[in-house]
Amino acid sequence: MTADKRGLFFGDMKTINSIRSMQRKARELCRRHTIALVPTMGYLHEGHLSLVKKARKAADVVVATIFVNPTQFGPGEDFQRYPRDQKGDRALLRDAGADYLFMPDAQQMYPDDYQSYVETEQLSQTLEGAFRPGHFRGVTTVVSKLFNAVRPDVAVFGQKDFQQAVVLKRLVKDLDYPIKLIIAPTRREQDGLAMSSRNAYLGPGQRREAVCLYRGLRRARTLFAEGVTSAARLKKAVRKEILEVCPTAEIQYISFNDFHTLQPRIKVDRDTVCSVAAMVYDVRLIDNMRLG
Amino acid sequence: MTADKRGLFFGDMKTINSIRSMQRKARELCRRHTIALVPTMGYLHEGHLSLVKKARKAADVVVATIFVNPTQFGPGEDFQRYPRDQKGDRALLRDAGADYLFMPDAQQMYPDDYQSYVETEQLSQTLEGAFRPGHFRGVTTVVSKLFNAVRPDVAVFGQKDFQQAVVLKRLVKDLDYPIKLIIAPTRREQDGLAMSSRNAYLGPGQRREAVCLYRGLRRARTLFAEGVTSAARLKKAVRKEILEVCPTAEIQYISFNDFHTLQPRIKVDRDTVCSVAAMVYDVRLIDNMRLG
Repeated sequence: MTADKRGLFFGDMKTINSIRSMQRKARELCRRHTIALVPTMGYLHEGHLSLVKKARKAADVVVATIFVNPTQFGPGEDFQRYPRDQKGDRALLRDAGADYLFMPDAQQMYPDDYQSYVETEQLSQTLEGAFRPGHFRGVTTVVSKLFNAVRPDVAVFGQKDFQQAVVLKRLVKDLDYPIKLIIAPTRREQDGLAMSSRNAYLGPGQRREAVCLYRGLRRARTLFAEGVTSAARLKKAVRKEILEVCPTAEIQYISFNDFHTLQPRIKVDRDTVCSVAAMVYDVRLIDNMRLG
Repeated sequence: MTADKRGLFFGDMKTINSIRSMQRKARELCRRHTIALVPTMGYLHEGHLSLVKKARKAADVVVATIFVNPTQFGPGEDFQRYPRDQKGDRALLRDAGADYLFMPDAQQMYPDDYQSYVETEQLSQTLEGAFRPGHFRGVTTVVSKLFNAVRPDVAVFGQKDFQQAVVLKRLVKDLDYPIKLIIAPTRREQDGLAMSSRNAYLGPGQRREAVCLYRGLRRARTLFAEGVTSAARLKKAVRKEILEVCPTAEIQYISFNDFHTLQPRIKVDRDTVCSVAAMVYDVRLIDNMRLG
């Protein structure tokens, strides 16, 4: 192994478990280096690794984090059963080029007398926020905590969580974080299913039908390319397509919103994103696609 | 003028008005220096300047800020008439040893579509929070914004705003800000009145009676030194003392709370703080004193 310009050894990923140590390390690193943050909840797939690779190009030092954040799960959601694989994750992150893995525990992140929350209000109310009340408050709180402990110059998130990306961009702007957000494209399985740690919940037959969201979104994009701009008409077509692929899917929303502002669109355009959420055999799946 | 170890010229204070410029400057400074932040709302008095002097000793570079923060004023409070003196403030800060004055305007801090807020919940409900709903939400939000833009290693606040200090300590701990808070003692006029920009609202006769809060607090401390530990008894004595000095004072609260947790105390001890708020001739004054 040879030391590179970061004074680090390639493949020599350090794991940091304490917030205090992370803060100290970040303070030290930021004197000489730019820092990129890749926050994850673990159980990593190629989508996460593509974020690490983007981070690798965007800054000198890459800090990946794994923390299954309880405050972004609602009552009755899958916090307890959320899949975990520390050992596998560590190897994947190291191979993808992360320099540090920050992995605090929940007791440290949210001690008993914890009481501070960060909220981005309007953008958190709609879509996912309407079906998962409090979800984005948990996200903006934990991401703020990670921003503060890691002091990144750049942070990388996936486009799959489209609304999350919009909310976090607003958070960064509103709260004056000196951080550039990079939103990386959604990675998909061969049939088009968006990669997600939650796909692990699907049995093999269910897995085949889970492509219904992607197929619905593609239908919207095709129709838009053919000149259809009525959100109502597109919505009907997306619904039909989803239910053709997975007749038992319980669709929570099919929505057309502006890419930057989340404003709902009655007439769609190139900057409109179609996003969908559905329960597929008790697994809640989301996906989205820009029409243009 | 000669350049000192900070590469700055003493007395050569720079004013920064844009958030973006502040962020860039902070990123540059933090590579070589430690940074101390002194947030103020301007109309400076010796109390503020004592914070700058503390900051001067605590870090390489001192960034003072002046921003009359609209979100911490309630409807009907004195936001509009809050006293302002930019020119005087600038001279005072320069002489006290500030290196940078960060002075953004409200349109930049809270543009029309602003929607992100930071809240420290339980600690913000009591005392000032009960009489000024939303006040601490405004404080924790603006202080978070300043923390993010200035990236201080140290931030200095006054003990006069006792509850604010407790709330901000919790904010820093909960949100993992890598910042050390220094709480500087309350500066007082010769008769004991706590220095405050709001004292400027008082006419000369009113000014004399405004010492009532300090006199009440001293009475509590004397009685505690004599062995009285019943909060109810102390409260009665403080009220009596305040009204003897200023018979028209409208007392909002006289409260005995733990110095660290704000837990109300029935039996007081050395770590109990007595805090008072009263309207003195339409001017809202607060003050506090640790009993031990």
